[in-house]
Amino acid sequence: MPQSKDSPDPAVVLLSGGLDSATALAVAQRDEFECHAISFDYGQRHRFELDAARRVARAAGVKRQITVPLDLRTFGGSALTDDIDVPKGRDQSEMETGIPITYVPARNTIFLSIALGWAEVLGAFDLFIGVNAVDYSGYPDCRPEFITQFESLANLATQAGVEGRGRFHIHTPLIDLTKAEIISLGRELGVDYSLTHSCYDPADDGAPCGRCDSCTLRRKGFAEAGLSDPLHYAN
Amino acid sequence: MPQSKDSPDPAVVLLSGGLDSATALAVAQRDEFECHAISFDYGQRHRFELDAARRVARAAGVKRQITVPLDLRTFGGSALTDDIDVPKGRDQSEMETGIPITYVPARNTIFLSIALGWAEVLGAFDLFIGVNAVDYSGYPDCRPEFITQFESLANLATQAGVEGRGRFHIHTPLIDLTKAEIISLGRELGVDYSLTHSCYDPADDGAPCGRCDSCTLRRKGFAEAGLSDPLHYAN
Repeated sequence: MPQSKDSPDPAVVLLSGGLDSATALAVAQRDEFECHAISFDYGQRHRFELDAARRVARAAGVKRQITVPLDLRTFGGSALTDDIDVPKGRDQSEMETGIPITYVPARNTIFLSIALGWAEVLGAFDLFIGVNAVDYSGYPDCRPEFITQFESLANLATQAGVEGRGRFHIHTPLIDLTKAEIISLGRELGVDYSLTHSCYDPADDGAPCGRCDSCTLRRKGFAEAGLSDPLHYAN
Repeated sequence: MPQSKDSPDPAVVLLSGGLDSATALAVAQRDEFECHAISFDYGQRHRFELDAARRVARAAGVKRQITVPLDLRTFGGSALTDDIDVPKGRDQSEMETGIPITYVPARNTIFLSIALGWAEVLGAFDLFIGVNAVDYSGYPDCRPEFITQFESLANLATQAGVEGRGRFHIHTPLIDLTKAEIISLGRELGVDYSLTHSCYDPADDGAPCGRCDSCTLRRKGFAEAGLSDPLHYAN
């Protein structure tokens, strides 16, 4: 949390438009950071999430939001960026059998690196990312050990880190929470989840499929939190 | 160096079009890797280097070259990506007084991250980058400690690393060489330096200015190697 002073500390928040990143943004605002949101147009199948990111950023009143175009379809290799089907209807045990094909190679490393560059230009040392290692898809770049290592790297990689102007800190306020706990926290902080988008494979009109891993985890989270999901599912 | 076997190991080589990366590519080919070259169209002032990257890749006969568009002018903060003058006519002692304004925030972290993603898709565990920590501009992300940390990160960040299919290795064959030694090595390996481009601030026709830090280091390197630089300088 920033020290009490005249102006708030700036922070960069990775904002996908999903439930988790919207909640991470709300936590950064609760902690009185001046938030700069960064989103990525990386050729994802679910580009609808970019509209959601803009809606969430506007509702939160962030200082600035940028969307960085970066076409990861150039090399593909994931169901989200290549001509590969998104798995549907998998239950919890199937989701726990390894890293799924929706894994995008090096995605969070790439996104955090670009966010780090922007942070350095802004004079920000705080980055927020809504990764979660409980109700998640097993992606290696959502785990605490990855985040810790990236934080060390950030302080070696940059002029601001090397010159000791500050220490970069990667905040992961959701990393130990269940999806239900994330949703409950977000509701407390006033997040409007009707603005968010979680589905990996939405219909042409943006309606969530309800059956991909991301929809399944989201629906389970709302059910366990005893709350109703404001989204209307295609299935 | 890859083990002797039927098919060569794939490698991803970061290829800017400059003297160093062209030499790093030649080393990767000497070491019998099947080379995939990646270049970045990041809004750099010296976009001429992208033509050079394509020329160098073609002359080397790489397996594939890709140019990834990623506009870092979105947040600027460097003389290479913002409306900031490139320093000219600095001597060695001036160049050694700190990190210059041509530093691009988090650039090598961003480039290596994207290269890592492509490597994972290719099944490659070897990345080559022509960073140099002797005759260089003091950029933090050219130092050995940065590279070592990135290598650790790569093995935590990816499915291929976590599942133990291999260990990522970031090769930096030039890191301890002087610019003269790099040029001598490249000549031995048959690099045609007339194809390369080093200037940060070329004339409209692509002619190198001869006075930015990058031109100064290059010219000094050729002089110390006792070789003539095939480029024609504006000054």
